[in-house]
Amino acid sequence: MVEDPNLIRIGIVGGTGYTGVELLRLLIGHPKVEIGAITSRAEAGIAVADLFPNLRGHLDLSFSIPDIDMLAECEAVFFATPHGVAQAMVPELLTRGVRIIDLSADFRLRNIPLWEKWYNQPHGCPELVEKAVYGLPEINREAIRKARLIACPGCYPTSVLLGFLPLLEAGLVDTSDLIASSASGVSGAGRQAKIDNLLTELNDSFKAYGVAGHRHLPEIEQGLGDIARQPVGLTFVPHLLPIIRGIHSTLYANLGNLDVDLQALYEQRYATEPFVDVMPGGSAPQTRSVRGSNMCRIAVCRPGNGGKVVVLVVEDNLVKGASGQAVQNFNLMFNLDETLGLGHPGLLP
Amino acid sequence: MVEDPNLIRIGIVGGTGYTGVELLRLLIGHPKVEIGAITSRAEAGIAVADLFPNLRGHLDLSFSIPDIDMLAECEAVFFATPHGVAQAMVPELLTRGVRIIDLSADFRLRNIPLWEKWYNQPHGCPELVEKAVYGLPEINREAIRKARLIACPGCYPTSVLLGFLPLLEAGLVDTSDLIASSASGVSGAGRQAKIDNLLTELNDSFKAYGVAGHRHLPEIEQGLGDIARQPVGLTFVPHLLPIIRGIHSTLYANLGNLDVDLQALYEQRYATEPFVDVMPGGSAPQTRSVRGSNMCRIAVCRPGNGGKVVVLVVEDNLVKGASGQAVQNFNLMFNLDETLGLGHPGLLP
Amino acid sequence: MVEDPNLIRIGIVGGTGYTGVELLRLLIGHPKVEIGAITSRAEAGIAVADLFPNLRGHLDLSFSIPDIDMLAECEAVFFATPHGVAQAMVPELLTRGVRIIDLSADFRLRNIPLWEKWYNQPHGCPELVEKAVYGLPEINREAIRKARLIACPGCYPTSVLLGFLPLLEAGLVDTSDLIASSASGVSGAGRQAKIDNLLTELNDSFKAYGVAGHRHLPEIEQGLGDIARQPVGLTFVPHLLPIIRGIHSTLYANLGNLDVDLQALYEQRYATEPFVDVMPGGSAPQTRSVRGSNMCRIAVCRPGNGGKVVVLVVEDNLVKGASGQAVQNFNLMFNLDETLGLGHPGLLP
Amino acid sequence: MVEDPNLIRIGIVGGTGYTGVELLRLLIGHPKVEIGAITSRAEAGIAVADLFPNLRGHLDLSFSIPDIDMLAECEAVFFATPHGVAQAMVPELLTRGVRIIDLSADFRLRNIPLWEKWYNQPHGCPELVEKAVYGLPEINREAIRKARLIACPGCYPTSVLLGFLPLLEAGLVDTSDLIASSASGVSGAGRQAKIDNLLTELNDSFKAYGVAGHRHLPEIEQGLGDIARQPVGLTFVPHLLPIIRGIHSTLYANLGNLDVDLQALYEQRYATEPFVDVMPGGSAPQTRSVRGSNMCRIAVCRPGNGGKVVVLVVEDNLVKGASGQAVQNFNLMFNLDETLGLGHPGLLP
Repeated sequence: MVEDPNLIRIGIVGGTGYTGVELLRLLIGHPKVEIGAITSRAEAGIAVADLFPNLRGHLDLSFSIPDIDMLAECEAVFFATPHGVAQAMVPELLTRGVRIIDLSADFRLRNIPLWEKWYNQPHGCPELVEKAVYGLPEINREAIRKARLIACPGCYPTSVLLGFLPLLEAGLVDTSDLIASSASGVSGAGRQAKIDNLLTELNDSFKAYGVAGHRHLPEIEQGLGDIARQPVGLTFVPHLLPIIRGIHSTLYANLGNLDVDLQALYEQRYATEPFVDVMPGGSAPQTRSVRGSNMCRIAVCRPGNGGKVVVLVVEDNLVKGASGQAVQNFNLMFNLDETLGLGHPGLLP
Repeated sequence: MVEDPNLIRIGIVGGTGYTGVELLRLLIGHPKVEIGAITSRAEAGIAVADLFPNLRGHLDLSFSIPDIDMLAECEAVFFATPHGVAQAMVPELLTRGVRIIDLSADFRLRNIPLWEKWYNQPHGCPELVEKAVYGLPEINREAIRKARLIACPGCYPTSVLLGFLPLLEAGLVDTSDLIASSASGVSGAGRQAKIDNLLTELNDSFKAYGVAGHRHLPEIEQGLGDIARQPVGLTFVPHLLPIIRGIHSTLYANLGNLDVDLQALYEQRYATEPFVDVMPGGSAPQTRSVRGSNMCRIAVCRPGNGGKVVVLVVEDNLVKGASGQAVQNFNLMFNLDETLGLGHPGLLP
Repeated sequence: MVEDPNLIRIGIVGGTGYTGVELLRLLIGHPKVEIGAITSRAEAGIAVADLFPNLRGHLDLSFSIPDIDMLAECEAVFFATPHGVAQAMVPELLTRGVRIIDLSADFRLRNIPLWEKWYNQPHGCPELVEKAVYGLPEINREAIRKARLIACPGCYPTSVLLGFLPLLEAGLVDTSDLIASSASGVSGAGRQAKIDNLLTELNDSFKAYGVAGHRHLPEIEQGLGDIARQPVGLTFVPHLLPIIRGIHSTLYANLGNLDVDLQALYEQRYATEPFVDVMPGGSAPQTRSVRGSNMCRIAVCRPGNGGKVVVLVVEDNLVKGASGQAVQNFNLMFNLDETLGLGHPGLLP
Repeated sequence: MVEDPNLIRIGIVGGTGYTGVELLRLLIGHPKVEIGAITSRAEAGIAVADLFPNLRGHLDLSFSIPDIDMLAECEAVFFATPHGVAQAMVPELLTRGVRIIDLSADFRLRNIPLWEKWYNQPHGCPELVEKAVYGLPEINREAIRKARLIACPGCYPTSVLLGFLPLLEAGLVDTSDLIASSASGVSGAGRQAKIDNLLTELNDSFKAYGVAGHRHLPEIEQGLGDIARQPVGLTFVPHLLPIIRGIHSTLYANLGNLDVDLQALYEQRYATEPFVDVMPGGSAPQTRSVRGSNMCRIAVCRPGNGGKVVVLVVEDNLVKGASGQAVQNFNLMFNLDETLGLGHPGLLP
């Protein structure tokens, strides 16, 4: 192992899912990163590029069995794993000085019993939860810079939190009656063999799911409550789109008869954010405009000049909703330009 | 022209759009119908099956120039035209005893100035508007049986009205704060050469549109107000799905702390309706389950047993949202079994 | 069990796959059929309409465990099973007088060792193979009428055989150098939980597969050889389309400098076939024109008036390529109008 | 205008099509390029990012009316225009020292009468055609380095030429009987308002087109003939895929009973090519593996070890098939690293 002293050696645990390959795609183009290890128990020994042929010629690395000692040689480790995995490995890695960026849900919820209820298992290291920083830079940038353990937001939460943020910070809307009608591309469901996610089951169709309750609901409510500094009431209905990438959230809140310049409010709040783009008044963002990019695009509207505000938010669920946001957090943690490796535009058409 | 005395001769004005070819597909299988004429000024002389190859071998008819005398020989004429066309021809045809089923927006709005504002032209025969029956059988079945002129509901309005109907009839929800977050397949935009509707512009993407105002909004508000017997406040946000057929409406209303069995309410209201199917509690309808069929599927849910009711509605925008509903109206007008020609299940997968 | 004496009671073994639900969709609309039983070991006890919501209201039947005695009460049994299943049950059912329509590959290949090589298992009842009739009505109509056991052709073979048929019967092309470049919708891969068939893996993409060898190759070669009355040499390359239904085969053969009216040849050969439609010269068939229909559409072309003939063939792999053809065979076996239950046009758009 | 002396100022004529926006996407990330002008007569004055929202924040430039003086201030001008446009402007720009990279068909065919027949108009500057270099680096790298005028290959030709190249150079196959069965995503048809290219007309469907003759046929035949050093006979059948980007060519040729290591042949021929990737034996490339990337992936196969060789080729029609190849040519012309701005992997999933 010959390390370039100018590069930061990183590891990825759980590289065979879609957030894993997306991390690789982004980090391959990152000028300050050396990918030291990528683990997968199931695919150990297989070349990464055999599983993900887009990476042929870009990455000469094979999946390895997760190994604490090998990971401990990295300065940072990303977890792109199902919930429950990071909890088992993070304590040891933190002790050995590794910084952790967890893309799973393991450290997102501060309320441990709530986590255990929604994820249906005991939490493996509840004592670390309060030390984890929720990795949404638009809210927690300074805390992220100093963090040792980042809990990256979920894909739906990122879109809903960024969409409601200016309204809640300004205290303009009724926090007891918020609605998020969201729709996600299928990659949000992961790379798992399930009949429900076959092309034949989803293409040329659309449906809601999880109306009675979705695991992202408590995470979103926690995040909205943090911003509003009070508990909020949210109705969250996710839908499944027959597309690969992209989340679109349509948010509804009650303004009453307040007289406020919503466009200016949003533009000012996000004026210096590199990855939030407030669209011109009267426009509506398309998910394809952020395909493959870390940008979140937002439009705000007051239909018929009435009492309801409608916010439209798009992001790529695998980038700003997962791996791109993880890299953004990484950049902040290592005091790099926040946009390193994330500067490319979306792929359109 | 040799007429089978057991068949009802019908004509179609404007047969080159998607509602036109869908009318043909349904009427070809209708045991009581003879298709006498199908008009298109642009395609006159062209065989219908040359434009729509799925009909090869099923229909030996060419498009003809619209001609009042020829149409007057039909017992019923369907208008599958852009708005403004039916207004010009319907008065004469009614005078000559032809029954009219208009799939366009020409006779849907009772408020003429409102129509003229949204459609940006003077109304051609305002005196007929009050004689038109709004063709939603689940509300107006008896009036439809006696009608001479049917204004078929729009595709979005059908889904929103059927979804809110039981709640509004029962007076259970706050009528001043209704939300319809709807999504439509692209065939709803018609068969027109527009860059915005190219596959390359829409596939693998999703967006809202018309947030500031959509022509279906006043129609839906009129329909909801009729059911509720009072004006309603509706926020309506349509979205565009990268699918061909299908509308999905996600409806939100405030129940407060009412204790009501929503599942029973919906099942009872629609128990005898042949084309409304209330799904079991906890399920969510998929648009593909109604692909090509006249069924409207509805699920009702109260997330977290809170104050908000969520209703999920799917229909095929070209069938229950347009041509199938037109045939259903036709069956009622001619005292036929309401389901004739409409009995096939959806195409799944 | 009260039987309508005018109806033919049928059973379906293996009803949870796509050919199973497609059989149900077609048979529900068949005026001479009563569906007596539909079996699935895995889903026994579950209502069919719970698995396939398009059938809600159309079919009040649950999956049952496969039971020979129950199936023996049917006049005909369809097998919509993976290979190997029919072999185990067919002998007993035939003995008890049941007629069999097998949609699987179990009885298609007359060469038993070849079958055993490609399907990698011993054949369960080789003695029945020679009694099975290959169920392609355009070739074997009279034999089908008298058959007790039908081996329905595979989806690819149907398209390739119908495409080459007029050329081979007329002895016009070099049989040692035939090429079939075919492409199938994903439903051809069945309703199985496989990562490779996820929407995320296939949408917005295209690939060949099985170039080194596909199980349909020996079946096609056998069928082509039967038509040509001599062994043929075929290069067969299947591809996977990001669509649900539809097969498109592009066929290439060498005419040399023969002077022949190909259009007339094809039109004459298929003039009386209810489910083969020869397109006008210069046109090209679209798979959507046969979506949901039993039609096979063919166009024939001689590019640049040279030595190569190109034939374009489309079918719906689940209808003419599987369940529709099975019903066509059923109609012939029971001396019914061959088109019963199959008369509807394709769903376009 | 303040120029960075380290940057090469370029202009783009015809920036509103898909090859135009793709050029922008690639050149935005190119470290040696300054985009000086992008023209569009129809959209003059409109901000580029208003038309292509993926570029918001990446490009602060508006479309301008094509102006020779302004373009002459650029060192290189890309034409991303319909055929016929470059012919009118290129002579003057060349005279003024500007280097030209033409993505249109204007300078591809050396046979002027053939060009005039296929493009149905007189050629505007036939005297320049013989000075143009056909911009396929894998064949013409050295000539490209010295060229003033590049005719970029068409999207289909790129895939077919690269696929057949090793076989023809080695003289292994019968050049009188080559077949290219190709399939393209819809972006190949450009950003034009046509009913045929609506999502509703193409999605969930597949078809061949242009079987009787496609404009790329003479270009491919010229290119194959150049490689083979003799005229070739090609049957070319293009198909239209319901995807946005991607071309897949399945090539067939006759090897007879030659004993040759095809895998080694291809690997050796392309060993040093940065943008041709020979896949391992037995694999098949997917178009998604090159989505958004300049890579061309090729697999070669000899089914059943017989006399036919099958080559599978994928590329992104907008990148290696158009704008990426244009940038690759640009890099060569300006003596830059050939891969500058083109180093990113494909977007998968």
